[in-house]
Amino acid sequence: MRIDNSPARGTRDLLPDTVAVRDRVLNTITGVYRRYGYQRIETPCLEDIRRLTGGDGGENEKLIFRILRRGLPDRVGAGTDVSELVDLGLRFDLTVPLTRFYRNNHAALPVPFRSFQFGPVWRAERPQKGRYRQFHQCDIDLVGESGVLAEAELIEATSHALAAVGLSGTTVRLSDRRFLSALAADAGLSERSWDGFFISLDKLDKIGWDGVRAELVDRRGLPADTVTGALERIEALRGLDASKVIDAIATVVPTLDDQVLADLSTTTGCLDQVANTGELRWEFDPTLVRGMGYYTGQIFEVTHPKSSSSVAGGGRYDRLIGRSLGRDIPACGFSIGFERIVDLLDQVPDRQAVAVLYDTDVPVTEALRVARDLRAEGRTASSVRRQGRFATQLERLASWGFTSFVHLRPDQDPTIPPTERVLGHHAQP
Amino acid sequence: MRIDNSPARGTRDLLPDTVAVRDRVLNTITGVYRRYGYQRIETPCLEDIRRLTGGDGGENEKLIFRILRRGLPDRVGAGTDVSELVDLGLRFDLTVPLTRFYRNNHAALPVPFRSFQFGPVWRAERPQKGRYRQFHQCDIDLVGESGVLAEAELIEATSHALAAVGLSGTTVRLSDRRFLSALAADAGLSERSWDGFFISLDKLDKIGWDGVRAELVDRRGLPADTVTGALERIEALRGLDASKVIDAIATVVPTLDDQVLADLSTTTGCLDQVANTGELRWEFDPTLVRGMGYYTGQIFEVTHPKSSSSVAGGGRYDRLIGRSLGRDIPACGFSIGFERIVDLLDQVPDRQAVAVLYDTDVPVTEALRVARDLRAEGRTASSVRRQGRFATQLERLASWGFTSFVHLRPDQDPTIPPTERVLGHHAQP
Repeated sequence: MRIDNSPARGTRDLLPDTVAVRDRVLNTITGVYRRYGYQRIETPCLEDIRRLTGGDGGENEKLIFRILRRGLPDRVGAGTDVSELVDLGLRFDLTVPLTRFYRNNHAALPVPFRSFQFGPVWRAERPQKGRYRQFHQCDIDLVGESGVLAEAELIEATSHALAAVGLSGTTVRLSDRRFLSALAADAGLSERSWDGFFISLDKLDKIGWDGVRAELVDRRGLPADTVTGALERIEALRGLDASKVIDAIATVVPTLDDQVLADLSTTTGCLDQVANTGELRWEFDPTLVRGMGYYTGQIFEVTHPKSSSSVAGGGRYDRLIGRSLGRDIPACGFSIGFERIVDLLDQVPDRQAVAVLYDTDVPVTEALRVARDLRAEGRTASSVRRQGRFATQLERLASWGFTSFVHLRPDQDPTIPPTERVLGHHAQP
Repeated sequence: MRIDNSPARGTRDLLPDTVAVRDRVLNTITGVYRRYGYQRIETPCLEDIRRLTGGDGGENEKLIFRILRRGLPDRVGAGTDVSELVDLGLRFDLTVPLTRFYRNNHAALPVPFRSFQFGPVWRAERPQKGRYRQFHQCDIDLVGESGVLAEAELIEATSHALAAVGLSGTTVRLSDRRFLSALAADAGLSERSWDGFFISLDKLDKIGWDGVRAELVDRRGLPADTVTGALERIEALRGLDASKVIDAIATVVPTLDDQVLADLSTTTGCLDQVANTGELRWEFDPTLVRGMGYYTGQIFEVTHPKSSSSVAGGGRYDRLIGRSLGRDIPACGFSIGFERIVDLLDQVPDRQAVAVLYDTDVPVTEALRVARDLRAEGRTASSVRRQGRFATQLERLASWGFTSFVHLRPDQDPTIPPTERVLGHHAQP
């Protein structure tokens, strides 16, 4: 049997330089989140297929890698439903596992609980450039805090993390699901049309105002006047100066609940405070929807001029975690698009490594000892057998990331440390 | 639908304290291996099912989590072979993926290539204490080095890593598959009985000498005299003083190839050198087999008095990677049983964190600002709302790992930093 040596369709191998950059980005993010008190947890990559298809995953539920039950007979009976053969699936996000984790372990967790997760998720999407079937997500969630301190802290921490990894020029976009509902109600849209309204509005980036209007009126059959009224309200709240946002919302959507306005006022006040330190830029974005159906309050995204989709996103979801516990558990989360920011950063590894080049006749013990002595000084050192043309080998060593070398010959006096030479274009034997 | 909130059968959730200890162990191991020049790579968790069942996984191939093809009809026809429904599986080790990775990427990799891998693997074993269906492996491999510098360096690096994480009292056990074959030949066992001989010998720990002898003679039908001769040779080479090992092997197995003896002599010489620094204890163990069929030369294990099975193991496998490239690629690897050493270490997390306790009437901006100021000093700080009995809340904060707190009241003068108090049994309001 002969199989191609490529990784499975839509997945990829990560080479050392790539992993080094990813590790550095992850360590920086982890360090920032840790200082905010977020503690890393881990859940298994496998979850019960019924949980994964319970409705909280939206479109992602169609993209699950499903796992066969163990101990099946070699052949299946007539008319067997494929779903009967399956009991587990690979997680498609870190939110569904977090809800199960919290329900299962809440007695042992702090209140509020600051969760940090980093790990692979899988989606059987049609492979395309920059999109992989296995990719990593990086989530923080604050569970058990009902106030907007959660929102403000999550946005501050994530902005801080993105700045720390060197991603500059980002903007935080803020809105609130409760504001969107109030706006829709205020414009005269019936409550059962809201979901469709939000779904169409969410496509604004792709299909434009005319596209949204056409979809709402022609496809969804909503009254043209009402749609116009709703879209005009939204347009009136775009691109506002930070200091005018709260008053403008109160004016444009007068029926908005005071608490929603107070919450937005608090969050924007906190963001202004962080913005003054120069680490954050934010704006209110009335067109922001966020795809997932479980959001119940403020929602937010981070955008970057070089990325057509957001680099981070999140919001409040107060009714998801508690559902099977019979009570609401307030929660708010923020997810960094790890793969996207690594792609945007375009960093290079900064490894310093010494090659201990040893001639074939040099005793192995000696090659190892010289490398050991270098490591004892805190250096990174690897023994490499001397072979081929000297200059060619030095060029290769440099291309592999070695920054200097020592050359051990059989006549080397072991009591004298060998001379270290820098590797580079002008390295000489 | 109601599902239990436990993780999938045989898997587990990792809570913050557990993850903190694991991360510390991993970071220490990574730091040591990095200084030896090992670079981390990553391969996808999914591999082609044909690759996973290609014969290099031994017994593990029976324990694969198999993944359904995407786009299957809802019902399958009668008598459909289950294997036709499957195209991928979850990896059961990191060696099979490494062979594919190397074949796929060798043109871009250094020669020799020092690979470090850490990641989850899956085996559908019967769940039992301390054994999980998802667990992490930690492998280093040196690919492209045919000499025993590889063996000596891998053993030194792994011993160094285990010492660095604080696991003391380990012993490295060394043998060689070529030595075992020569011993079997020398005792008069026919070549086609060797595999069975090794498999039975590998059970020595569990079934004892009499059990091994009985299995070889009664079950495998090998001549009793020959078996006795082979086992006597093995017994004669047990528990030898390091300085006598090479001579004893040469005497007991006189037909052994000179190169094998020279290799063992070199490796043991290197190990003696490291042993002199106190970081390593080693012995030759003629009963060591290592389960996998792909080993071709020296094999090794690290044992610890508190663990019945080995805490690390590896060996040379020169014919695995090159198989589909049409040429041998020399390779040698060492795998640390990450879960096992974490269990043995019994460490506690050492987090230092400040709780910023804020009364309900304190503005959120103020609670966030105080935490921010603490973080600016390099501290870990989280805002926690003041609630319930004060003493009870302080006890809870301490139990959750907070080591100190500040208490913000509405009348707090924002220009005066709040007083920080240590948390512990005697913490007072």
